[in-house]
Amino acid sequence: MKKILVIGEILVEIMADSIGDGFLQPQALTGPFPSGAPAIFADQAAMLGQPVAIVSAVGDDDFGHLNLDRLARDGVDISGVFVDQDRPTGSAFVRYRESGVRDFIYNMRHSACGHVNMTASVETLLETADHLHITGSSLSSPEFVKLNLEAAKRVCERGGSVSFDPNLRKEMLSADGMADAMSRIVAMTNLFLPSGEELTLLTAAKDEPGAIAELLTRGVRAVVQKNGAKGAVYHDAVEAIAQTAFPVKEIDPTGAGDCFGATFISLWLRGFSPARALELAAASGAIAVAEPGPMEGTSDLPALEAFVQSHRGTS
Amino acid sequence: MKKILVIGEILVEIMADSIGDGFLQPQALTGPFPSGAPAIFADQAAMLGQPVAIVSAVGDDDFGHLNLDRLARDGVDISGVFVDQDRPTGSAFVRYRESGVRDFIYNMRHSACGHVNMTASVETLLETADHLHITGSSLSSPEFVKLNLEAAKRVCERGGSVSFDPNLRKEMLSADGMADAMSRIVAMTNLFLPSGEELTLLTAAKDEPGAIAELLTRGVRAVVQKNGAKGAVYHDAVEAIAQTAFPVKEIDPTGAGDCFGATFISLWLRGFSPARALELAAASGAIAVAEPGPMEGTSDLPALEAFVQSHRGTS
Repeated sequence: MKKILVIGEILVEIMADSIGDGFLQPQALTGPFPSGAPAIFADQAAMLGQPVAIVSAVGDDDFGHLNLDRLARDGVDISGVFVDQDRPTGSAFVRYRESGVRDFIYNMRHSACGHVNMTASVETLLETADHLHITGSSLSSPEFVKLNLEAAKRVCERGGSVSFDPNLRKEMLSADGMADAMSRIVAMTNLFLPSGEELTLLTAAKDEPGAIAELLTRGVRAVVQKNGAKGAVYHDAVEAIAQTAFPVKEIDPTGAGDCFGATFISLWLRGFSPARALELAAASGAIAVAEPGPMEGTSDLPALEAFVQSHRGTS
Repeated sequence: MKKILVIGEILVEIMADSIGDGFLQPQALTGPFPSGAPAIFADQAAMLGQPVAIVSAVGDDDFGHLNLDRLARDGVDISGVFVDQDRPTGSAFVRYRESGVRDFIYNMRHSACGHVNMTASVETLLETADHLHITGSSLSSPEFVKLNLEAAKRVCERGGSVSFDPNLRKEMLSADGMADAMSRIVAMTNLFLPSGEELTLLTAAKDEPGAIAELLTRGVRAVVQKNGAKGAVYHDAVEAIAQTAFPVKEIDPTGAGDCFGATFISLWLRGFSPARALELAAASGAIAVAEPGPMEGTSDLPALEAFVQSHRGTS
C-alpha cells in the first residue's frame, strides 16, 4: 500500500465545556485531547490500515507523550517526531460561540512543533513517501512551509502524489508568506480538498464552476469540495459526484474535515471508485462530528462500512 | 508609601479538578485563572494599598487581557507590562497528587513572559522603585535574571531594600545558572523569605540555626521562614518571633506563599512591628489557601484584620 506523509503540528486541545465568547473568565474545561490537523489526519489514515507517517515535534511533557502514545497505538509511524527537551508541546484552547464560530488561543509557533529537526528519520520519510498530504494549518510555521514544499517537490519527482486541504482559520491568515506558500503548493497538488469558500481563495476565477475548471486545467486531477453538513462534491475532468452528509447530532466538528480527507485520500490511493471513497469519507466525517474531542472520532474501515450500511437512505 | 517593584512571569493557570497524576488523559479542568508568583505578590500588595508595579509581558490574547484586567482593577501599576503581538501568554497546568505534591506543565520561557522588553516605562520603574521583591520562579528566564540583578543593584545603590523568596520548584532547578543567580541575589537581600528546606539551600551551613546566623552576618536584616501549615518564624539580629498558622481547610495552597510574602513585606515597609506584620501575613496566607485559584484569595487590610480578630486564640 502507498505510504502517506504529513508534516505539521501536533497539539493538545483544551475544550471549553460551555458555549460562549473566549477565555476571559475561569470556566469549566476538558482536556488535554490529542490534536493538530495533520495528527488527526494521520490517525484516521492509520485506523484504516494505511501506512502513514507524521513529521513533527512535541515537548518532553505529558502533553507530548499523550499524543505520541495515541498515534503509536493507532499505527502511525512516529519515527519523524522529535521530542524537544526545551520547548513545550503546542496547545490550542477552543471554545464554540453561539454562532458555531470557534475562538482559539494557540501556542504553536513558539512551541515544540513550531520547529523542524531534520533527523535521519525525517530524511528517510521524505525519501520513501508515496503521497504527501498538506494541511494549511501547518503553514503558519515558516519551517513547516519550507519542509512541505521540499517534500512535495521530492514526492512529485518520484512520481508520487500530493493532496492539499487549505484548512484556513482566521487566526492564521495573517502569517507572513501564507498566500504565496499556498499558491506554490496548489501548483504541485493532484487532489485538492477545499472547504466552502476556500475553493476560490487561490484561483483567479471567483465563482465555483470557474474555479474548478481553472484548477483542473492547472494540473489538479480532482477537487473534493467539503461542505460540512451540506455534503461533499467530487470533480474531475470527466465527472462530478455529489455526496450528501449523513445526518448526525453535531457535538464537535473539530477534526471532522481531517477525518473526511484522510479517509477519502487513503481509499483513493487504493483505487476505490470516487463515489465509494466519497461515501465512506462522509461517514468518517459524520462519526467524527458526533464525538467530543478532535481525534476521538477516528474509525476503522469496518466501522465506516457498518455506518454507511446502517445509514443507507438517510444521506 | 514605598513603591515595590516585581519583575517576572505573568501566567494563566489551568487547574485539574481531580487529584491524580499529571495530564496523560483528557479530564475536567478549570481555568484560566490569573497567575504567576510575582503577579500574585503584586496583586496582594496592591490590595493592601501598597504602590506596586510589575515588569513582565503577556500575549495579545484573552489570557493576557484577563491578567492585565485583574491587576489593573486591584491597583497594580502595569505600565511595565509589554503586550507581545507574536508570543502567547504564558501558562501553567497544575494538578495535585494524593501526596499534595503538584505536577506542572509550563509554557513560560518561550511564551511572552520569557522575554523582557526594556521600554521607557520599564526604565522609569527601575529608577523609581523603593523596594525590589524577587521570586525564584522568575529566575528560570535568563532575561529576567539579568533584569532582576540590575534592578537589585540600582535599588540598593539608592538606599532601597530587596526581598527574596526562593520559591523553588523541582521543574525549575535544572535551569542553567539558577544557583549562581540565587547566590548573587542573596548577597543583595535585606529580607529573605525561604520555605522549608530552601533556608539551607544557599548557605554553607546545613542546619537551621547555622543558616540563619550565616545569613544575618552576610547582610540579611531579617529571615522569615515560611513553613505553610506549620506556621512562620521571624529572625533578626536581636529576636526570633514564631507565628503559628491559622487553621483553615486547605483548598489550594498555590499562591499562599506569595500572599504571605506580599503582606509581610508591605507592612514591614510601613514600619509595622515584625510580630504584627507576621500575624497579618499568616492571615493573608490562610485566606489564600482556602480559595481555589492562585490569585483569587488576595485580601485588603480590613479583611486581614477582621480575619485575625475572628481567629484570635485559634492560631
